[in-house]
Amino acid sequence: MDLSAIPIVDQHAHNLLRPEHARGFAYPSAFTEGYAAEVVTRHAQETIFFRRSMREIAELLGCEPRLEAILEARERLGFEEVARRCFEAAGFEAILLDDGFMPDRVMPTHWHNRFARVRRLLRVEFLAEQLIAAFPTWTAFEEAFREALHQPDPEVIGFKSIVAYRTGLAIEPPDPEAARAAFQALRQQAERGERLRLAHKPLNDWVVWRTLEAAAHLGLPVQFHTGFGDPDLDLRWATPLHLRPLLEHPDFQRVPFVLLHASYPYTREAGYLAAVYPHVYVDLGLAIPFLSRSGMASVVRAFLEFTPLSKIMFSTDAHLIPELFYLGARWGRRILGEVLEETIRAGDLTVMEAEDAAEAILRRNARALYGL
Amino acid sequence: MDLSAIPIVDQHAHNLLRPEHARGFAYPSAFTEGYAAEVVTRHAQETIFFRRSMREIAELLGCEPRLEAILEARERLGFEEVARRCFEAAGFEAILLDDGFMPDRVMPTHWHNRFARVRRLLRVEFLAEQLIAAFPTWTAFEEAFREALHQPDPEVIGFKSIVAYRTGLAIEPPDPEAARAAFQALRQQAERGERLRLAHKPLNDWVVWRTLEAAAHLGLPVQFHTGFGDPDLDLRWATPLHLRPLLEHPDFQRVPFVLLHASYPYTREAGYLAAVYPHVYVDLGLAIPFLSRSGMASVVRAFLEFTPLSKIMFSTDAHLIPELFYLGARWGRRILGEVLEETIRAGDLTVMEAEDAAEAILRRNARALYGL
Amino acid sequence: MDLSAIPIVDQHAHNLLRPEHARGFAYPSAFTEGYAAEVVTRHAQETIFFRRSMREIAELLGCEPRLEAILEARERLGFEEVARRCFEAAGFEAILLDDGFMPDRVMPTHWHNRFARVRRLLRVEFLAEQLIAAFPTWTAFEEAFREALHQPDPEVIGFKSIVAYRTGLAIEPPDPEAARAAFQALRQQAERGERLRLAHKPLNDWVVWRTLEAAAHLGLPVQFHTGFGDPDLDLRWATPLHLRPLLEHPDFQRVPFVLLHASYPYTREAGYLAAVYPHVYVDLGLAIPFLSRSGMASVVRAFLEFTPLSKIMFSTDAHLIPELFYLGARWGRRILGEVLEETIRAGDLTVMEAEDAAEAILRRNARALYGL
Repeated sequence: MDLSAIPIVDQHAHNLLRPEHARGFAYPSAFTEGYAAEVVTRHAQETIFFRRSMREIAELLGCEPRLEAILEARERLGFEEVARRCFEAAGFEAILLDDGFMPDRVMPTHWHNRFARVRRLLRVEFLAEQLIAAFPTWTAFEEAFREALHQPDPEVIGFKSIVAYRTGLAIEPPDPEAARAAFQALRQQAERGERLRLAHKPLNDWVVWRTLEAAAHLGLPVQFHTGFGDPDLDLRWATPLHLRPLLEHPDFQRVPFVLLHASYPYTREAGYLAAVYPHVYVDLGLAIPFLSRSGMASVVRAFLEFTPLSKIMFSTDAHLIPELFYLGARWGRRILGEVLEETIRAGDLTVMEAEDAAEAILRRNARALYGL
Repeated sequence: MDLSAIPIVDQHAHNLLRPEHARGFAYPSAFTEGYAAEVVTRHAQETIFFRRSMREIAELLGCEPRLEAILEARERLGFEEVARRCFEAAGFEAILLDDGFMPDRVMPTHWHNRFARVRRLLRVEFLAEQLIAAFPTWTAFEEAFREALHQPDPEVIGFKSIVAYRTGLAIEPPDPEAARAAFQALRQQAERGERLRLAHKPLNDWVVWRTLEAAAHLGLPVQFHTGFGDPDLDLRWATPLHLRPLLEHPDFQRVPFVLLHASYPYTREAGYLAAVYPHVYVDLGLAIPFLSRSGMASVVRAFLEFTPLSKIMFSTDAHLIPELFYLGARWGRRILGEVLEETIRAGDLTVMEAEDAAEAILRRNARALYGL
Repeated sequence: MDLSAIPIVDQHAHNLLRPEHARGFAYPSAFTEGYAAEVVTRHAQETIFFRRSMREIAELLGCEPRLEAILEARERLGFEEVARRCFEAAGFEAILLDDGFMPDRVMPTHWHNRFARVRRLLRVEFLAEQLIAAFPTWTAFEEAFREALHQPDPEVIGFKSIVAYRTGLAIEPPDPEAARAAFQALRQQAERGERLRLAHKPLNDWVVWRTLEAAAHLGLPVQFHTGFGDPDLDLRWATPLHLRPLLEHPDFQRVPFVLLHASYPYTREAGYLAAVYPHVYVDLGLAIPFLSRSGMASVVRAFLEFTPLSKIMFSTDAHLIPELFYLGARWGRRILGEVLEETIRAGDLTVMEAEDAAEAILRRNARALYGL
């Protein structure tokens, strides 16, 4: 099934690295969730994803399928031309950018509008860190944070939480006293000029809770990092099943929860939640294109087992380099097309239903959810 | 491999809805584990299971494959004729009914004997709720509950627990004082005329423990809901791995534990338990027919990886509408036949072994276990 | 892809049973992780692994594919001839033996050198049990244990821990006081002449911690039993995700952690850890050959999804009977060859890359890690 005619809504990605920072950036590190030097310089180059991607990028850039040749071709073509080729080949209708990832080193969010309509996802932990640095008292911080959440930039169409990377998804009801104590500890760091890292469970949980309240008020979805990611993350606390108390909470019944990254390896668990809760959605980003072809297909199959077609969305989770947007879009269409063809052969869906499902997953569900 | 000649022992299902209640019942709700209005009226109709099933039901009823046409055909044919067609096409030798699901609105258990030999599974939480409503003191309740368990109706050939839906499978040794306190709280609700819901961990655990004692005494199996189900259930506490202390308990070594619903998504975990413990069995119900065809096949494959063929049983988990009996039986035979054919091609089983395995899984294992 | 030309480094196996003990040994018990009589004599003979293996062993021994015929053929050919056939057909370059499994009843480790170069894995729980029996005071034991770890026999090329079987993988920082108390309890057993079983969390955790310190000092890898095994083991505490605090610990960054048995059913979790941590490796033993063919293939596919090819190793986990070495090697090559062919067809790897991956997984990665 050829899905190349469907313009994709990439419902979760990140800004591109500024070209002046590209020199200090180890290209293979964009292809791994590891960050240790030995991973980046050696093992990450031994994954199927890396090997396959080198060939595909080389073809797009017109060079030999070796890392060095690709680095040379990128240099020769220049940042803008590489980006142009990648996005043109990718074919996006809209891109939702979480612009809180490496914010000091990336291109401005609006800059990406040249490739597709861009909207913002507000990364609430980054927002909180900025405001902790800016406001010396808890009262002032609390007010500023609430205001920032409740009156976001009009380009913001959803929130994003990386609490899975910090203190885990087993979020507890807010304890303002403990949150305030964590704030004080971070303020002391701020006053010593240290870089802040919000990883204090009572305060992280408070941040998520306030976010959900704002989302309920504004009618905006909240995206959660779930499942695999870099080793900052304790995978035991990254299964979306831990979100249950929030999913059951009466105040958050109208808040769409978007479970990112197919919650890999908790894909069936995520699909289950999206099947039984009206306000839970799942996403394919990172699992596509970071896995082997068989792995990408098995993730899509896992969702199709039990999850409504109206609850599955697509993203690339691309970050820093334009190639990941290209690879994500390419493999998203291709794997989805192949797996939907299987469902036709299995008698699970008619051709028309399968075509409609592709459109829903690649574009329509996200358009509807974010009001694009 | 055509398994249509094997009459199925459906080792776990539920009674049909009385026709007079069918009017108030949203037909799509039988095809989903969700119960929120938005799930039933919209998302549940977007699963592969729903789409595929509409086509298959329409074919059986002789109408167009649309929900409205099916509802019309059901009306036109009448309850008994629809049931007759479904059960005739299904081909059961025996059906084990847990008749504690929606007990006020379903047909009497013996009524189902027209379709196949029927035996009862005693749902112990429902039994406990009835007796709590009937007996004002802990002592009287305790005695009545013990008696009901130890001298059940002769049609009862096993117990069934839904503790996974209430307080989870991490069952602790009984604490009679705490159980009695929970009983008092429920009695107060009973005296206010409220509907009782047994969801008080010390009392639920006490109920399971007493059930296992009775099962040991009577030599009856105990079925446990495990894995996915409606959102009453916290999936974190529904993995059968939590049953370990009971499986290891010296008093319960002769009690067969039946893990229902392929423990989806904990299928390999369930299969592991059935492989290493002599008294653990697994079941395919709900996973068949509620999943995509690829999902159903992957569940069967997961069990065949490691679990003895003598430990796998089949059920439909059908409830309320006869169509689910038909779909369960149809897909049970079909998927099992296909996956067993794969094992022949793989050199894992001979043709004769695979045929024998089909017979064991669809009928023989349950016949032996329940003494049918 | 025919991998028969690659001599295997079997990076985890156990010694063969002495022929004089074979009489009292139930042959089917080598094919199951269960140990209850009813499992060994009945259900274990109903797995696909058992059925398939009987046929393959019968072919190798030249007899009919029935248990009794195989037992007769083994008797007729004799222990040495059966072993010779199995190892010759298997084709090992080297074998790493954990010789702490049933140490009283197996052949000496050096005896196995006739089949391939043999190196030892020091099972630290067995070592600790021996030294607890030998040394009456904590101080003397502590010194002896430390010395045994830091100055092992030159044939030792790694440590092996079975803490997953005893107190689980959620290892806590050592608490010397609590460890000493557990030591005293074991000493009392020793003085009563009882067989010691080290299953006292503070002491087991202390043992693992001291092992990791010695491994860091000596530059040796530590193998951990992870995932499925016999029912001694609580599978909830056998997921390698619990190792995270050790993996993150600054003192152990240079210690290679080898996660055995594909951590089944936590294979993707293990593969994730090996992808993001430079010092984590995974292994295919036990999953091959103990699963169905589809199961073995799905485990290999699961690793190839995300794990660097430089981090995957092969073992048989063979124990007691030579047939398991044969079956492990046979299926290791065959399944790996088939799955790698799939990656070629999928465009994930080139033919050359796939051939190189086979060599890496079956031999090169282990040679490099253990300095063979």
